[in-house]
Formats: sequence, structure tokens, C-alpha cells
Amino acid sequence: MRHVICAQVENKPGVLAHISGLFSGRGFNIDSLTVGRTENPAVSRMTIVVTGDDAVLEQVRKQLEKLISVLKVTDFSDKGMVERDLMLIRVNVPPPKRPEVTPLIEVFGGKVVDISQTDMVIELSGPEAKIDTFVEMVQPYGIKEMVRTGIVAMTRAEHNNSKRKRQEPGVPA
Amino acid sequence: MRHVICAQVENKPGVLAHISGLFSGRGFNIDSLTVGRTENPAVSRMTIVVTGDDAVLEQVRKQLEKLISVLKVTDFSDKGMVERDLMLIRVNVPPPKRPEVTPLIEVFGGKVVDISQTDMVIELSGPEAKIDTFVEMVQPYGIKEMVRTGIVAMTRAEHNNSKRKRQEPGVPA
Repeated sequence: MRHVICAQVENKPGVLAHISGLFSGRGFNIDSLTVGRTENPAVSRMTIVVTGDDAVLEQVRKQLEKLISVLKVTDFSDKGMVERDLMLIRVNVPPPKRPEVTPLIEVFGGKVVDISQTDMVIELSGPEAKIDTFVEMVQPYGIKEMVRTGIVAMTRAEHNNSKRKRQEPGVPA
Repeated sequence: MRHVICAQVENKPGVLAHISGLFSGRGFNIDSLTVGRTENPAVSRMTIVVTGDDAVLEQVRKQLEKLISVLKVTDFSDKGMVERDLMLIRVNVPPPKRPEVTPLIEVFGGKVVDISQTDMVIELSGPEAKIDTFVEMVQPYGIKEMVRTGIVAMTRAEHNNSKRKRQEPGVPA
């Protein structure tokens, strides 16, 4: 099963190496990982997406919680959550193709952040599935370069969990 | 000096632990790090932001290049680049405060992705400085939770480097 794990950790050298070692020691490959700032400068927040055996992952989670530098661990997988990914993608778009590609970017809510005679760099954020769909749509033009941040996530407000459906993949929001 | 380093690495267990160990072994604290997918499923792209001594960092970069699992290393610091960060932030916004906060979100090009009787979760992407400014603006309302992906970056097309100024910080784009 795919797990989205969030760990609040002390912002100091060595913590990241320690934590990523815990996962690779068990043979888990990390699908994506982000470590960024939080509202507290002394604390970083790691969001780790891994796919693997639930029982083994539960052990890894417990080990994580024992680390002094780890302040809090949350497994979002069974909770209602908002998840977002950010992509920069350089697509082969010579001027005659621009009228085709531009409406596509608009529909997905993307932004052109750099442009040249041969290509466009597009910024797009949203749920992972929406970004995957956009990548599929521009694939025929030729993708020259792509970088994605990986997922960050936050739980939804309680009342929403019961009322709202999960975000539908592939639908621009 | 602040460095934005991009490493294209093999997508397999242990690579992240190895690389983050290289940095922490030299006492570098990583400001932000992302590891995400690329156009090639066998390759991940890491974007590492570190601040530290240039000469020592140059050594770390050389060591990185020697690793078999590292395919390519680029230091963006002296190149024209597009850099983007993504944030989810939960702000204390009870209904009477909504008319104050909503225009702020619009000006910055953010999106409300969850809302309750007590707060809003806002998604915002852009250059790091723009996000920092937004955080400052909503600080007085009360930040309940914040997560940022950290930076991803891509070089600008050559012709732009000479003609275009660096993105001005703090200006919504």
C-alpha cells in the first residue's frame, strides 16, 4: 500500500541521513520525499511517500518515533488529506505549436515561467494525479526536462472527511 | 553562500541516505531537499538547498559526482534559473475574517483547498521570497500549521539570462 508519512523533525545536520537510512535499511524505496520549513524555524517537516508492506512500514514508523530528533510522526494514509505536488516541466513548443499548448496550460491552471524559440517551461501544482495527466497530455510534443517536488500533505478539517469525496484524479481543480 | 544543487540519481533504495550522509558528514545543514520523479522512471531528481562554505561545498559536489548512483550534478547558484516552492498553510480564519483574507490570497495567486468554521488551508506556489512574504502577511491571523516542499529549480533558456533581471522577491507573479 502507498503511505504518505509526515515527520516533524529537528532542523539540524544528520537527521535526514538517519531517517532515510531507516527506510533504505528495510529495502523501502522512497517514491518522493520533501524536507521543508515550518512555522517554527527549529523544526522541519518531512513528507515521505513509500509503497510497501504495511506491517514492516509500521515497524519503521515506530523506530522513527523513538528517534530523539523526531518530534512527531503522522501516517496520513488512512486520513482525509489534501496532497499537493509541484512540477516544472520543459516542453518542446516551437512558435507554431504555442496555440495548441497554451489552452492546455490554462485548463490545468499552469503558468508559463520561461519561454524560448524552441520550448516552454511550465509550472503546475495540484494533486499528483492531475500532474500525471498533464504530463501525459504534453508527452507527444516532447518533454525535455522535468522536476517534481514530491508530495506535501495536510489533514482536512474533520467535518469534511465525512461529507466530501476524495479528489478525483485527472480533473483539473 | 546559498547553493541550489540538482542531482539526477538512480531511483533505488539507499541513494538518498548516502547523499544526505555526505552533506551531514561535513556539517552542512540542508535548508530544503526534494526528491521527485522525472521524465525517466529509473531516474529521480534531487534538489538540495544548502548554505555554507563554497570551497567545502565544492568538495562535496565532487564526491557526489563520483557516486555510481549519481548520474549528473548541477550547481544552479551561478546560473539563471527558475526556482519554485510550494506551501500548504493552515491559517486561523473564522468567518468574519474571511473578507480580509480572501483578497490577499487572490493577489498572491493562492488557492483555498480546505475550509472550516475556524480556519482555511491555502495552497501557494512561487519563488521562495513570494511565499515568505505571504507567510508574513497572514502571520497576524495565526498560523496553525505549515508545510513547504522546498525548492525545485530549472535553468532558464540562454537568451533570457542576459536580458532578464532576476525575479524580484516579494512581488506576486
